[in-house]
Amino acid sequence: MKPLALHPDRLLPADPGTRTIARELFELVDKLPIISPHGHVPAEWLADNLPFTDPTSLLLTPDHYTNRMLHSAAGVELEELGVGVGGPLDADASRRAFRLLCENWHVFRGTPVQTWFESVFHDVFGIRVRPGAESADLIHDTIAERLADPAYRPRALYERFRIETLATTDDPCSDLAAHRKLREDPTWKGRVVPTFRPDAYLEPARSDWRDLTRALGRAADVDIVDYPSHLEAMRRRRAHFKELGAVSTDHSHVDATCERLGEAQVATLFARALAGTITWSDSQLLRAHMLNDQAALAVQDGLVMTLHPAVARNHDSSASTRYGADVGADVPTSVEFTRSLRPMLDAYGNSDGFHLVVFTMDETVYSRELAPLAGWYRGLFIGAPWWFIDETDAIMRYRRSVTGYAGFAKTSGFIDDTRAFCSIPVRHDVSRRVDCAFLAGLVAEHRLAMDEAAETAVALVTTQPKKVFKL
Amino acid sequence: MKPLALHPDRLLPADPGTRTIARELFELVDKLPIISPHGHVPAEWLADNLPFTDPTSLLLTPDHYTNRMLHSAAGVELEELGVGVGGPLDADASRRAFRLLCENWHVFRGTPVQTWFESVFHDVFGIRVRPGAESADLIHDTIAERLADPAYRPRALYERFRIETLATTDDPCSDLAAHRKLREDPTWKGRVVPTFRPDAYLEPARSDWRDLTRALGRAADVDIVDYPSHLEAMRRRRAHFKELGAVSTDHSHVDATCERLGEAQVATLFARALAGTITWSDSQLLRAHMLNDQAALAVQDGLVMTLHPAVARNHDSSASTRYGADVGADVPTSVEFTRSLRPMLDAYGNSDGFHLVVFTMDETVYSRELAPLAGWYRGLFIGAPWWFIDETDAIMRYRRSVTGYAGFAKTSGFIDDTRAFCSIPVRHDVSRRVDCAFLAGLVAEHRLAMDEAAETAVALVTTQPKKVFKL
Amino acid sequence: MKPLALHPDRLLPADPGTRTIARELFELVDKLPIISPHGHVPAEWLADNLPFTDPTSLLLTPDHYTNRMLHSAAGVELEELGVGVGGPLDADASRRAFRLLCENWHVFRGTPVQTWFESVFHDVFGIRVRPGAESADLIHDTIAERLADPAYRPRALYERFRIETLATTDDPCSDLAAHRKLREDPTWKGRVVPTFRPDAYLEPARSDWRDLTRALGRAADVDIVDYPSHLEAMRRRRAHFKELGAVSTDHSHVDATCERLGEAQVATLFARALAGTITWSDSQLLRAHMLNDQAALAVQDGLVMTLHPAVARNHDSSASTRYGADVGADVPTSVEFTRSLRPMLDAYGNSDGFHLVVFTMDETVYSRELAPLAGWYRGLFIGAPWWFIDETDAIMRYRRSVTGYAGFAKTSGFIDDTRAFCSIPVRHDVSRRVDCAFLAGLVAEHRLAMDEAAETAVALVTTQPKKVFKL
Repeated sequence: MKPLALHPDRLLPADPGTRTIARELFELVDKLPIISPHGHVPAEWLADNLPFTDPTSLLLTPDHYTNRMLHSAAGVELEELGVGVGGPLDADASRRAFRLLCENWHVFRGTPVQTWFESVFHDVFGIRVRPGAESADLIHDTIAERLADPAYRPRALYERFRIETLATTDDPCSDLAAHRKLREDPTWKGRVVPTFRPDAYLEPARSDWRDLTRALGRAADVDIVDYPSHLEAMRRRRAHFKELGAVSTDHSHVDATCERLGEAQVATLFARALAGTITWSDSQLLRAHMLNDQAALAVQDGLVMTLHPAVARNHDSSASTRYGADVGADVPTSVEFTRSLRPMLDAYGNSDGFHLVVFTMDETVYSRELAPLAGWYRGLFIGAPWWFIDETDAIMRYRRSVTGYAGFAKTSGFIDDTRAFCSIPVRHDVSRRVDCAFLAGLVAEHRLAMDEAAETAVALVTTQPKKVFKL
Repeated sequence: MKPLALHPDRLLPADPGTRTIARELFELVDKLPIISPHGHVPAEWLADNLPFTDPTSLLLTPDHYTNRMLHSAAGVELEELGVGVGGPLDADASRRAFRLLCENWHVFRGTPVQTWFESVFHDVFGIRVRPGAESADLIHDTIAERLADPAYRPRALYERFRIETLATTDDPCSDLAAHRKLREDPTWKGRVVPTFRPDAYLEPARSDWRDLTRALGRAADVDIVDYPSHLEAMRRRRAHFKELGAVSTDHSHVDATCERLGEAQVATLFARALAGTITWSDSQLLRAHMLNDQAALAVQDGLVMTLHPAVARNHDSSASTRYGADVGADVPTSVEFTRSLRPMLDAYGNSDGFHLVVFTMDETVYSRELAPLAGWYRGLFIGAPWWFIDETDAIMRYRRSVTGYAGFAKTSGFIDDTRAFCSIPVRHDVSRRVDCAFLAGLVAEHRLAMDEAAETAVALVTTQPKKVFKL
Repeated sequence: MKPLALHPDRLLPADPGTRTIARELFELVDKLPIISPHGHVPAEWLADNLPFTDPTSLLLTPDHYTNRMLHSAAGVELEELGVGVGGPLDADASRRAFRLLCENWHVFRGTPVQTWFESVFHDVFGIRVRPGAESADLIHDTIAERLADPAYRPRALYERFRIETLATTDDPCSDLAAHRKLREDPTWKGRVVPTFRPDAYLEPARSDWRDLTRALGRAADVDIVDYPSHLEAMRRRRAHFKELGAVSTDHSHVDATCERLGEAQVATLFARALAGTITWSDSQLLRAHMLNDQAALAVQDGLVMTLHPAVARNHDSSASTRYGADVGADVPTSVEFTRSLRPMLDAYGNSDGFHLVVFTMDETVYSRELAPLAGWYRGLFIGAPWWFIDETDAIMRYRRSVTGYAGFAKTSGFIDDTRAFCSIPVRHDVSRRVDCAFLAGLVAEHRLAMDEAAETAVALVTTQPKKVFKL
């Protein structure tokens, strides 16, 4: 078995002079608390604080970054990793899944999955051997043993990870019971906030849209008979979320189109939607209007709006039939923001308190559209690279693409967007290291003074995300 | 107050070996004259040679790079920077604007605005303190004092900046009085040339197009009653510009589409345009034909054609209502050249003396479209990164994207495209440094011999722009 | 005359620490055999093993990378390089062409053409002077002399180049006589395999499509009267190719669209195609279905499918009139894969033995579409950068773009895709050097252990292309 060690200078630039600067910057931010304003860890974990059942359910099953590569490059079936199994795995099944991970460890070379797991194994679970066929059982069983220890319960990890704020992502109809439980628990000192995610409710051509709308009406105690009552229901549910700590709403549709339609047209389209007779193209149009109205609501209630359009969901239909959504078969497409967001930005882009954070998996928009837009509109912030591009090289490309015309002040701060709880520290660590590497490059090339770089490095993980997400 | 110094190796590569090479290359070009074949400095400044009135009117008001970041990241209103005020500012207003710049200096970290101002302050005005709340008045007042000195009049600066050629951008109907005045002034030894910019006259659906066309006819002494007479008017105005030194025409439309329509169709569309009944889509079609005919005229009169399409102008409608055009709320969109330019390139791309310089803010076309096109067509040159991407990292990306398939010989040389007169030296300095950094990388990796790199570095700021712009 | 030398560390990173690692990695792969699973060298050269006639016909005429730059940047006409001349050149004409190359050597600075020629001259022909006006004749005549030597016959070079497998590209109707001849020649120990390229046969709106279809029917001994008989003819010709060693089929259309149409619609469209009455848009639709069926056939016969869409062929119509196709006037366009390939990937993407290798000249799809797709679908591999982007910087960008979400295991291995036989070694050498440079960067930044990098470097030129292309 080969030893596993984490080099203190990992991800820092190879040039010795630049590395020295980067290390000095990184030391300033290394131990600072984690602000995670968007993610997918279940609030229940922290509310209930139950021990994690087994290594696979905690580390493999929910992590589609890992699943997808094992599926594509190693021929593994997702069931073997616990996906779709519907519950914790027994020790044998969990151990078998770990063998699949470790035996195929080479497929992760150079990927962030390697970086994340090496850190999770080493720093969270104290593993000191590199994953491989011969170390699989040892790694699995060590983790399994640790999980029985109270120090590995969710709340203990939350504290050990130095998490200051953690956001979940929630259905507008959710009663947010776990969030309420946490709020009412005097022993809980952390901050877990819900996020309002109304995507499905804004797609009138969905086959389940009328059911969803009825549910929304019930949750909001509003009889949704027309567009104004729909909007009122949205307003109430947003208020409910805000009451329980929410600071943002999250939106992902097939594109970023916004529209301000006339009242009469909206009434007609909404009536057709309620009647179940709306066409697909009219549905797109109505959704563009509804999305725009989420911005109007945001101006009123102050919730930050995050947007990450342009993904072909469930690209592999047999996978989605077999396992449902969110198993890793979503694939980005190109995206357009300059024209699409114009109605929203033109109306609200400089409004007091309006914050719109735009994420993309299409890197071409960083220098072409997002930096120029964020360099003009006060409310627009460029989201950090996430999902598919939340790794070392892409984060570096992001800084190199947006800094010229949006500086640091119009960027969101890092977003981990993860279901993989234990990987939260390393994901933020990677981002901090790369930001320090980027800043160190500016200093080494005499483009920025060291004191300016130091202030910026700290701001990017403290004041900046707090300002952008109103924390 | 912190000291302000410019490191001699700024923007050169951090790796010590590569930096040594880069420095050696940069020394060859550091002091060479500036060729600026496209920009927006008013010819009147040089013709009249009046002292600049105040620091803000000279350095802040016309510079939308600075305005837009102060607007978006610091909440400044453009009026506070003198925009739309319609004249020079009094000392207090000018000082207040400088305070806004200096107090918010941190928003420019890592942006070219920081680089440019640091150099302008240090090298042009002898400032030795870093901008900040506490140094704002000192910086402002030092500059104000300098501006009263004859050494800071436009012509003195022109000489001190070692400008060899400076192009302005002008309306086709302009009498170019300032250019004529300069030509007739025996004490003026510089070279300021006009540029023919007919955009508005090629957009028949514009509400002011018929007025513009009448004005064009008057200026050209042609009765514009049909397309041939329109073309004749264009021909005459181009000749007028050429007579007064113009070497190029400049074109920016919503896309790069060119068309060669049939004569009858053109006659019909043009008649509708004159009648004020042309539709928007017919207007686009006619514009594509008219743009193509500008290339036909270029083959005849030898004026170089520059093209920089694909910007959503006046994206923020309230800003354009309040301040008019060109305040910084223009935002790029993606662009397509391979198909769009085919009619023009197929007809004129290899014609004797036809030069087309294409600029883009959509970096994706560099390796995909522009380098392959310029690698085939003799008349096509790839414009340097400008406007939104005229900064260190983007210039480096440009060289890395186009050199493989278009070499250096098919690139335009640097274009500063600026209204900020005092920033011309530093903008060229940045470009020279980055080109030397790129060349040094090639030498360090043994991809180019040192003598080849040295020749190339010099050519890029001397023979290359002269060849491309026929200077 | 300046000396010509190849630095042993060429293309390796400038940073000394990283270079040392890169050199160590490169030594592991430097001398390994060449696997070339896609290219354009005529099989006849190896089958007949005749001496090459003259330096220009061997080195310049077939190399459109060189031709196009001489055309665009040096004003050379392609005839002067032997294009369209229809046969070997006499010594004078060949010498004149070399003078054009050498006198204009500066236009290739920083391009891969410079790298390739320097290596071909130095390593293949023992030239020790740098190309230039004064060395042109010497270089030409030295090469001409060498070509008379049996050591420079095709088979001798094939062995000297350490080629293990070389693929040609062939028309579906080809009898593959040269391939058969090689197979039946007991003295031939190499491996030259044909590739099935049916593009023209899948474009029903082409003016020659009915002739092609008749020829296909004759070659397959099938009476093509409807779509099923067309498919049967395809199946038989693919089998014929496979019999003679083919491992792959190659496809390039204007886009990547795939469709699964209904049987009745296909029958109607195909009948119109046979009748010569199909419209252009119906032809596109039918082609999308036919391309999809090539995947269906691939699942049956196991031939690997390579796809490289989105090029505007013969962009310069006067050049194609004068010289025919493939002279260098093809220009890439943007491409879309996520939606276009969905029908094919959804149906076959995880099927046993289905391999689809996708190439692009639009680099934006690497991180946005191809890495995410290849990170999910088992049969999808990301083709190495080729044609227009097969040079140092682009290869590095490729690795930086795809490794994060597809690792190394879902990449194709290097493809030289060349007609320039003598440049095969240096093209693979460049790729190996850049891959080692990339891996060395990962090691230097502690993102990968040295033993992992070493294994990966070797795999990328041995097991990986063998696996992907089933060699």
